[in-house]
Amino acid sequence: MRIATLQMQSISGDVQANLARIERAAAEATRGGAELLVAPELCVTGYGAGEAIPALAETANGIGIRGLRDISSTAGIAVVAGFAERDGADIYNSAAFINRDAVPVIYRKSHLFGAYERSLFKPAKPGNCIIDMGGLKLGLLICYDVEFPENVRRLAMAGVDAVLVPTALPAGPSGTFIASHMIQTRAFENQVFVAYVNHAGADERFTFAGQSRVAAPDGSLIAVCTDDQEHLMFADIDPAAFAASIAGNPYLKDLGSA
Amino acid sequence: MRIATLQMQSISGDVQANLARIERAAAEATRGGAELLVAPELCVTGYGAGEAIPALAETANGIGIRGLRDISSTAGIAVVAGFAERDGADIYNSAAFINRDAVPVIYRKSHLFGAYERSLFKPAKPGNCIIDMGGLKLGLLICYDVEFPENVRRLAMAGVDAVLVPTALPAGPSGTFIASHMIQTRAFENQVFVAYVNHAGADERFTFAGQSRVAAPDGSLIAVCTDDQEHLMFADIDPAAFAASIAGNPYLKDLGSA
Repeated sequence: MRIATLQMQSISGDVQANLARIERAAAEATRGGAELLVAPELCVTGYGAGEAIPALAETANGIGIRGLRDISSTAGIAVVAGFAERDGADIYNSAAFINRDAVPVIYRKSHLFGAYERSLFKPAKPGNCIIDMGGLKLGLLICYDVEFPENVRRLAMAGVDAVLVPTALPAGPSGTFIASHMIQTRAFENQVFVAYVNHAGADERFTFAGQSRVAAPDGSLIAVCTDDQEHLMFADIDPAAFAASIAGNPYLKDLGSA
Repeated sequence: MRIATLQMQSISGDVQANLARIERAAAEATRGGAELLVAPELCVTGYGAGEAIPALAETANGIGIRGLRDISSTAGIAVVAGFAERDGADIYNSAAFINRDAVPVIYRKSHLFGAYERSLFKPAKPGNCIIDMGGLKLGLLICYDVEFPENVRRLAMAGVDAVLVPTALPAGPSGTFIASHMIQTRAFENQVFVAYVNHAGADERFTFAGQSRVAAPDGSLIAVCTDDQEHLMFADIDPAAFAASIAGNPYLKDLGSA
């Protein structure tokens, strides 16, 4: 299955502008043969929208999700995108998997990073959100979640082939390390694909690392942004192409009672 | 605390030759100000000694351990080295921490790799082996053990500052990935030091990757062999020098119920 990843410049608080950007990418992704487009964490509202987020937080019937469903149906492609999700008085940092008219599948981030996120969102209990698509099992995580090996392991033990990770990775030494070493390690140590999709540029509050990438089971990068600009990339999620690595690095089988 | 690591060419089945090599390194390490020398997995017997290993497997009173105790006492340095350990009918792939006249501390590998190791050794139940030395807590793992994030996490949650890993990493694509990305990730995701000490060159059965290295909590390499030749390296294990990284990447605190 071919996926597309959108390293995206979001506009804080401007849902319509962000939907329009995703819509253009969805059309381009479809033209490139992709069946699924992955966009960054909170890209519907902008990651740094801050005090605007409570008012923009929405249910699965809100304008952001409805907009994504229209985009998915029009372009004929599934879309994963981060949004602020309202559930009564609670707001979650969530990602929606939207496939045309199907009921949206929503994952809520379990591991919030730092004071900014904790001031806005409620953390979800860690748990698996797994989608069957095109003969593959796709798992969802968001940003800081993937930095914990436990979260990726849990999905891998449940049989996922690929983990899709909308993120908002800031520029700086830790961000550089995570992009340069940790994402590939998560793929290799579980023998799965990891698609890690970051924001481009900066918003009012944050400067992002860019460096979106898709790592394969053997730890190689099958798509990579080397800068922090906007990029649409394509990657083929084909476990059979990495059968030798999967057979030769049997971590899940050898894990035992560690 | 300064440590030294010996990327070592072992001679399969020749315990006296291997002890002599460690003895030279211990003297050089002491001259360089190190308080601890780390040598590779099964370096006392040679990793590839194969059918010779059962006869060379020994208890803590065997010639290898007695030789290491003499080396430690003479050079005035603690030594970690891999050996084949006999316990009745069972043989373990073990590493001994030897500090002069103190009772040796012995760690048994829990995660055996491949048919070669499984034909020779019994796997131990995963568990923590932690040594207090110079105000630091040092944990022991062996080779494949460190490739499982669960093993390093367990030691980190128990408070270790550094994980010492005698290894026998083969040359090849997986070995290159592990050396280039995974060791640093284990350090960063737990905010600990990881000293990963491999064999040099080749023996009758295996060609090794070399590439021994010491990773710091921020994921940087504070010592690295870039080839597969013999090298003695030095690294200072000083958590205070990485206090900003440890405070800024609070994975253990944020792990919660993941």
